[in-house]
Amino acid sequence: MPHAIHAAYARPMARRSRRLCDLGETALIERIERRVGGPPRGGWVVGIGDDAAILRGRAGEDLVFSTDTLVEDVHFRLAREGPRRIGRRALAVNLSDLAAMGATPVGALLSLCAPPDLPVSVFDGFIAGFAEDAKRFACPLVGGNLARAEKCILSVTVIGRVGHGRALRRTGLAVGDFLFVTGVLGQAALARLTADRLGRPLRHVPEPRLEAGRRIARLRDVKACIDLSDGLSSDLGQLLRPVRLAAEVDPTALPAAPGFSRACRRMGIGPRRLHSTGGEDYELLFALAPGRAAADPAGLARRLGVRVTRIGRVVSGQGVDGIPALTAGHHF
Amino acid sequence: MPHAIHAAYARPMARRSRRLCDLGETALIERIERRVGGPPRGGWVVGIGDDAAILRGRAGEDLVFSTDTLVEDVHFRLAREGPRRIGRRALAVNLSDLAAMGATPVGALLSLCAPPDLPVSVFDGFIAGFAEDAKRFACPLVGGNLARAEKCILSVTVIGRVGHGRALRRTGLAVGDFLFVTGVLGQAALARLTADRLGRPLRHVPEPRLEAGRRIARLRDVKACIDLSDGLSSDLGQLLRPVRLAAEVDPTALPAAPGFSRACRRMGIGPRRLHSTGGEDYELLFALAPGRAAADPAGLARRLGVRVTRIGRVVSGQGVDGIPALTAGHHF
Repeated sequence: MPHAIHAAYARPMARRSRRLCDLGETALIERIERRVGGPPRGGWVVGIGDDAAILRGRAGEDLVFSTDTLVEDVHFRLAREGPRRIGRRALAVNLSDLAAMGATPVGALLSLCAPPDLPVSVFDGFIAGFAEDAKRFACPLVGGNLARAEKCILSVTVIGRVGHGRALRRTGLAVGDFLFVTGVLGQAALARLTADRLGRPLRHVPEPRLEAGRRIARLRDVKACIDLSDGLSSDLGQLLRPVRLAAEVDPTALPAAPGFSRACRRMGIGPRRLHSTGGEDYELLFALAPGRAAADPAGLARRLGVRVTRIGRVVSGQGVDGIPALTAGHHF
Repeated sequence: MPHAIHAAYARPMARRSRRLCDLGETALIERIERRVGGPPRGGWVVGIGDDAAILRGRAGEDLVFSTDTLVEDVHFRLAREGPRRIGRRALAVNLSDLAAMGATPVGALLSLCAPPDLPVSVFDGFIAGFAEDAKRFACPLVGGNLARAEKCILSVTVIGRVGHGRALRRTGLAVGDFLFVTGVLGQAALARLTADRLGRPLRHVPEPRLEAGRRIARLRDVKACIDLSDGLSSDLGQLLRPVRLAAEVDPTALPAAPGFSRACRRMGIGPRRLHSTGGEDYELLFALAPGRAAADPAGLARRLGVRVTRIGRVVSGQGVDGIPALTAGHHF
């Protein structure tokens, strides 16, 4: 490669210009939003910034779209997790975005990058895992792309449908709203850390909360919803920042699997930090206005068909009180 | 990483199992189709295997979906092409798939992987180029994902719309159909080779044939359409293989830009091979049943608003006669 051209690319580096890691994910997304400019026209209700984009449909139904990527040695290690589980997870993290919108899966596209010397058995494993959960969640693989790359990268786009104007959004929090989470927190992070430290295979695959999401979308008092991918602390911040509000979270109320604290201590990890910042829970965090549903968590759990825990409430101010803050680990 | 786990992944390699490069892209896609099993249900008209997937809409309109990925050092070199052009190209190659369906863009999602130490100016360049063409082709960026990776990877999904049942398909060729291409061939490959050999920046960005695609879809005699990404020889094979037919192509009829042969000879390249196997033309290849439109290429060009050339016809047999065969360079 001739020097003249290399220099053109190298120059900004030589000037110690800013790098992606200096800005972080949120600032980079804001940069994209500024460049793209305002909400998209042409039938789009929501563009960049929510769990998924929403396209206004014509027959009582909206379509939602989301995309998420798993990168080898960043989001997974082939040797630790096995290709089948990675294929399942690539779809599951996308379906979780549909769950957070209260949407039902329609189909998925898979863009798979892989090195040419990858054993076909690993490729088959990716596809088998993906196909298995595609069938289980009625989200057929309808298209995709294969490309050569040095590492395996699974980039998935999912399409979902939801009643006209019924999609759950990230916006809408108000002071006094109560915060709830489905399922338990910290278990995925504990499984990952345990697998790392003990050198065991990682068997955890997140379960997208599609049915719970659909039922949350039908609650009259629902104000906002997001899926927990980066950890409660970080994802709650995503709900609070746009409306410039804060939250008080009761750390002793966070739902845990039986034996969670004991297992954390055995690993020499602080359970509280892992609980709220570990990430990859793929549970739903949602807010309800004060009222009958919010006052009766047991009744709410019955209606949603999953464990539901009230973890705190929205207050004025800034930040999240009660749980540790986090810098997300998988980003820039 | 402990040996027990590494061994699980390494074992198939030790047995000299087949690798992706032993099978090639077409065989791998067939493997996916077999695993996924049959056409998808739930409103899907076309799944894997065409330029895009088609979802039956409810109000006189179908939606089409396609995804395509550009990988650093496989599909582009940052130093040679510059981030802005790469951003434009990432969208253009996807819009070309919509053109091949006769569809109109609705929106796009961008999954961008990049190393954390990438200068923000390069990131901004990707986004600026993408946004520029998104505006030009009325295809707003509505969502996406950012992830860390060792190389830059731009994975794009586009959504398009087309009249109910009017999408151009790859299937439908019959003996006697005439074959046409839009624009000129080989120019993109020549530009790439010239940039490579002389160490000059690559300035070529493909122009998706969206308007021509829409007009081709309105032709009464149209039988099949595909966009030329891998080169005429390879992409024509994609149309012929499923229907087990062959084609006779007149190599002297292939449309070239002025000075193409001379420029090839100056570079010491055979123009004929480059012409039909160079790839990245992103022109449309389509077939018309014999009739008035097929008999009048000049009138056809006026109707489609682009240069159109009749290059040959469909015959019984197997393979493509008249132009060199190709093994695509960017795949496995």
